[in-house]
Amino acid sequence: MADDSGAERCDAARNRALLLDAAALLVAERGADAVTMDAVAAQAGVGKGTVFRRFGSRSGLMHALLDHTESELQQAYLHGPPPLGPGADPIERLVAYGRARLAMVEVQGDVLRAVESSPELRFGGPARQVSLVHVRTLLRDAGTPGDLPLLAQSLLAPLEASLVLHQVRDLHMPIDRIADAWEDLVRRITAR
Amino acid sequence: MADDSGAERCDAARNRALLLDAAALLVAERGADAVTMDAVAAQAGVGKGTVFRRFGSRSGLMHALLDHTESELQQAYLHGPPPLGPGADPIERLVAYGRARLAMVEVQGDVLRAVESSPELRFGGPARQVSLVHVRTLLRDAGTPGDLPLLAQSLLAPLEASLVLHQVRDLHMPIDRIADAWEDLVRRITAR
Repeated sequence: MADDSGAERCDAARNRALLLDAAALLVAERGADAVTMDAVAAQAGVGKGTVFRRFGSRSGLMHALLDHTESELQQAYLHGPPPLGPGADPIERLVAYGRARLAMVEVQGDVLRAVESSPELRFGGPARQVSLVHVRTLLRDAGTPGDLPLLAQSLLAPLEASLVLHQVRDLHMPIDRIADAWEDLVRRITAR
Repeated sequence: MADDSGAERCDAARNRALLLDAAALLVAERGADAVTMDAVAAQAGVGKGTVFRRFGSRSGLMHALLDHTESELQQAYLHGPPPLGPGADPIERLVAYGRARLAMVEVQGDVLRAVESSPELRFGGPARQVSLVHVRTLLRDAGTPGDLPLLAQSLLAPLEASLVLHQVRDLHMPIDRIADAWEDLVRRITAR
């Protein structure tokens, strides 16, 4: 660690971001199946070995892509200003969480859907665990009774990118309508 | 139609059921990817041409497999005895619907999950449309206010086979607990 200079670490981070941007672009333009180690290397203009050294495998790359996409939202709900971040009423925070996630799906939906198409990442990834704990904690803080682990899963299910993209693209539902319906769901579930 | 004898029609139906049972067995034993036209033909002990004549394509076969799996449940909630079928209070029918679907996932989960892994079948298939209309109609009959098309989608999302199998197999939640939590969700959403 001592001889890892600041400049080197900075290069590595830039390199990593470059590769993840290339992977995200491939997902958006040509779908999840197009994200191979070869294609990411070609898109980013680096050798295939660089992609393997950085992510280990295609699965590692998809994991990293999800982290990249989720990390901004996590920062906002864990450490950002209210109503999404700490300080607001837990129900208002929950409503803000759903709206923020839906806004993310609107922009990054294809990346999220690509990740959901892997059963392992759909339910097993760290991003999902953090989201589940967050929703469960807010329900508990709001004094909501019931089976909170399952209630949290039921509240996250309608926010999945594949379902939301189907509602927006195939059923032509505006994202605001989806967000209003989710808020309504939360308010009914948490009503005293 | 006139010269299509009863015996011939009966043979065709038997043949179709035989092929669908073979496909369902392949899904259960070796996963959805194992369901190729070749593998189904070999499993059923018929020629590949028979499978193609009957279903047209792998996608057609997967459609038929879903119909086969869903049709019993549909019969029960559309035409069977209460509380699942007509005659009971709409909220009790909705609760019974969720419990019946979860019981089906417990038995036929691998077939249902295989179908859900195709985006087209997950949201576009006739079985999903019939389920959505049924849930929406019960919510309307119960006098539930709100955006019923989206509320129906939010209630079906936690019943998806992939999520339920994850809860049962990875999180070791008993199916009865999942059913109780879904009933609780329905009662909160429909509370006056």
